[in-house]
Amino acid sequence: MKEINVGLLGFGTVGSGVVRIFHRNCALIEKRLGATLKLAKIVDLDIERDRGVAVDSAILTTDAAQVVDNPDIDIVIELIGGYEPARELVLRALRNGKPVVTANKALLALHGEEIYTEAAANDVDILFEAAVGGGIPVITSIKENLSANKFSSALGILNGTCNYILTRMTDEGEEFADMLKEAQEKGFAEADPAFDVDGIDAAHKLAILISLCFGTKIDFEDIYIEGISHLSSVDISFAGQFGYKIKLLAIGKITGGAVEARVHPTMIPIAHPLADVDGVFNAVRLKGDFVGPVILTGKGAGMDATASAVVGDVISSARDLLAGSKMRTSPLGYRTEALEKLPVKAITDLWGPYYLRFLIVDRPGVLGRISTILGNHDISISSMIQMSRSFKDAAPVVLTTHEALEANIRSALYEIDLLEEVCHPSLFIRIENEME
Amino acid sequence: MKEINVGLLGFGTVGSGVVRIFHRNCALIEKRLGATLKLAKIVDLDIERDRGVAVDSAILTTDAAQVVDNPDIDIVIELIGGYEPARELVLRALRNGKPVVTANKALLALHGEEIYTEAAANDVDILFEAAVGGGIPVITSIKENLSANKFSSALGILNGTCNYILTRMTDEGEEFADMLKEAQEKGFAEADPAFDVDGIDAAHKLAILISLCFGTKIDFEDIYIEGISHLSSVDISFAGQFGYKIKLLAIGKITGGAVEARVHPTMIPIAHPLADVDGVFNAVRLKGDFVGPVILTGKGAGMDATASAVVGDVISSARDLLAGSKMRTSPLGYRTEALEKLPVKAITDLWGPYYLRFLIVDRPGVLGRISTILGNHDISISSMIQMSRSFKDAAPVVLTTHEALEANIRSALYEIDLLEEVCHPSLFIRIENEME
Repeated sequence: MKEINVGLLGFGTVGSGVVRIFHRNCALIEKRLGATLKLAKIVDLDIERDRGVAVDSAILTTDAAQVVDNPDIDIVIELIGGYEPARELVLRALRNGKPVVTANKALLALHGEEIYTEAAANDVDILFEAAVGGGIPVITSIKENLSANKFSSALGILNGTCNYILTRMTDEGEEFADMLKEAQEKGFAEADPAFDVDGIDAAHKLAILISLCFGTKIDFEDIYIEGISHLSSVDISFAGQFGYKIKLLAIGKITGGAVEARVHPTMIPIAHPLADVDGVFNAVRLKGDFVGPVILTGKGAGMDATASAVVGDVISSARDLLAGSKMRTSPLGYRTEALEKLPVKAITDLWGPYYLRFLIVDRPGVLGRISTILGNHDISISSMIQMSRSFKDAAPVVLTTHEALEANIRSALYEIDLLEEVCHPSLFIRIENEME
Repeated sequence: MKEINVGLLGFGTVGSGVVRIFHRNCALIEKRLGATLKLAKIVDLDIERDRGVAVDSAILTTDAAQVVDNPDIDIVIELIGGYEPARELVLRALRNGKPVVTANKALLALHGEEIYTEAAANDVDILFEAAVGGGIPVITSIKENLSANKFSSALGILNGTCNYILTRMTDEGEEFADMLKEAQEKGFAEADPAFDVDGIDAAHKLAILISLCFGTKIDFEDIYIEGISHLSSVDISFAGQFGYKIKLLAIGKITGGAVEARVHPTMIPIAHPLADVDGVFNAVRLKGDFVGPVILTGKGAGMDATASAVVGDVISSARDLLAGSKMRTSPLGYRTEALEKLPVKAITDLWGPYYLRFLIVDRPGVLGRISTILGNHDISISSMIQMSRSFKDAAPVVLTTHEALEANIRSALYEIDLLEEVCHPSLFIRIENEME
């Protein structure tokens, strides 16, 4: 049986998962592929540490050239993460005519164009199913099965750490800081959690999704990003009273020829298909003009689920090699020259319903003054509750609005916060009502 | 730009959807594919009827040979449905070296082996994403992205008609016959609904799923099939009191080297990921050894969603043609010679929890007699409710069991139905508790 030699760059958590798949499902993959996938080289700075998987020490090396410049290596897996040396090694492998499989969303979100161009120039695959949604088959679905559709939106719960923390805050009524600590203790959050809880990781994934769905190049800086660390359990509880859950959503939409690209805490109706995606699960809801809504759910992170997507890509690339095709599908599912550069809508131009929370000293007339300011900014109230529970020694007033312009919401809140009865900065959360 | 000529067999509902996609998304598909898909011929017995889509009459013909034997046709779409002439035309197209895209689950469930063999012999694609789950990208996910996994189970809500009827029965408390009538009036059920409500259609799809997931050939007659027409709204209501919903599930599992292949009404916990898949939506939950559970949800039927999957396959096949590869992936994702023929477990060998409903005349001692018979058959009761609501002039007693052997359930119910206090045949529904 024909052998395909795979070289692995990066023997960390996901790398160990990949090795485990090669060991455990080797015979099964042969049955499916009609060839043997052989893990021929593993590169890591540390080739001594025990990863709990048996590896022939002869294939371990600290020298990346033994993978990226080695004529015997057919397919390269990049699991180093980060920008350098990952970027340089990926480019070198592509230049050497080797297909590359990567899970590196940060790299693709910031240097995707350079990498896709190099892959196209050398007519080889660059595959990255593991970069978005871990084990969930979302990227191939967009590029292949759903490719007859014009997409209007892609909504995702794309960060397991945030989703775990928000789920625990919702279920337990606990505060962010405590649940972050718990997540760290359980290994669901990094020691430095900023990348996750500030929404950066979800935004990297959104950048990739938007290019795939809408065929547009997007500058990472054009994505609006807001994390979850400012959320309080009272807002989660108030949201529940309005019939909503709060999720960190990555949202990509096309409206009027412009792209919406934003990551922020979002209130979605409890019956929304993403509302019950809890804990470390991820999900993506795509909407195509013919297929309608499609929801894909699964484990968005973790050694095994991510390794599943990585090895799935290796099998796919091996099939291309065996069939004599090279780059069968363009990296983003569009011919490179067909990719556009659509304008990205400013967050202040967003039009939608909002949840607003004010903390006031309850004196006669204060609600009237708040309502008047909102009205002056073309914001009409959908429902309002004055909560009996006090928060930060103040009386919370929470309301939802009808559709309004975000610039107006921000101006109104600025004015309201100047009222002397308002004791703390007011807060708003965007609401996403569309269910299908 | 290179042109790829597509021939369409069958200009019915889905065929019209395909034509609509070709019209509306032609430019978009060019951007993605790098070639023009051209609908060159449409074959139907009726080429006069207005389908609400504009078609050049020159491409319409009643002669299938103009597609399957025409050297100018690059890819054939079969949407005739049923067994003949679909089978013969598909085989002829494959023999002529043309890749075939079909949505015909009945044909594949019964004649799949012959068709896959012919495709392999001619080294051309046979693609059928639309055959299972309509627009949901389930087949390609199994064959490509998730192909590093050993699957242990595939659970599906695969028939939109049944799911619509059960959802309406659940929400409205109405009976099967009335909701079937409503579904027919709304166009969600055929005039002859047997194929759907008796579970045959779901079983066709399950046969395909099982082959894809477990790499085994399966005889359609080996699938246990039970429809939904015997279900009553009282059982749906009682299920709710136990914390369950009733869905028509198609279930494929591997246990101890044997395949479970069954379609039947199933009670699943209300928090189960498939419990909220309502109305005409379909969903599949796959479980792989590395990826864990993956749930794919979307529209399982209808002109547009099904056409989305068909044209997605056409694009995929066109990519293979353009890349010079022919059959890039085997029809079932396994090399033909690697397909096994695993034994199928008899339904009486099933081991699991059950819901049992007895209709009794409430006399002293009757519950004791029922419990004794159950105990004699190694069936232990998990919870029991005697319902105050009478049904068919009798007192319903409903209970759930711990895990038991189905053969024992059947024998026990046979004995219980001989008791003079039992006024109607007892009923059982299988319970599926596993959530992840």
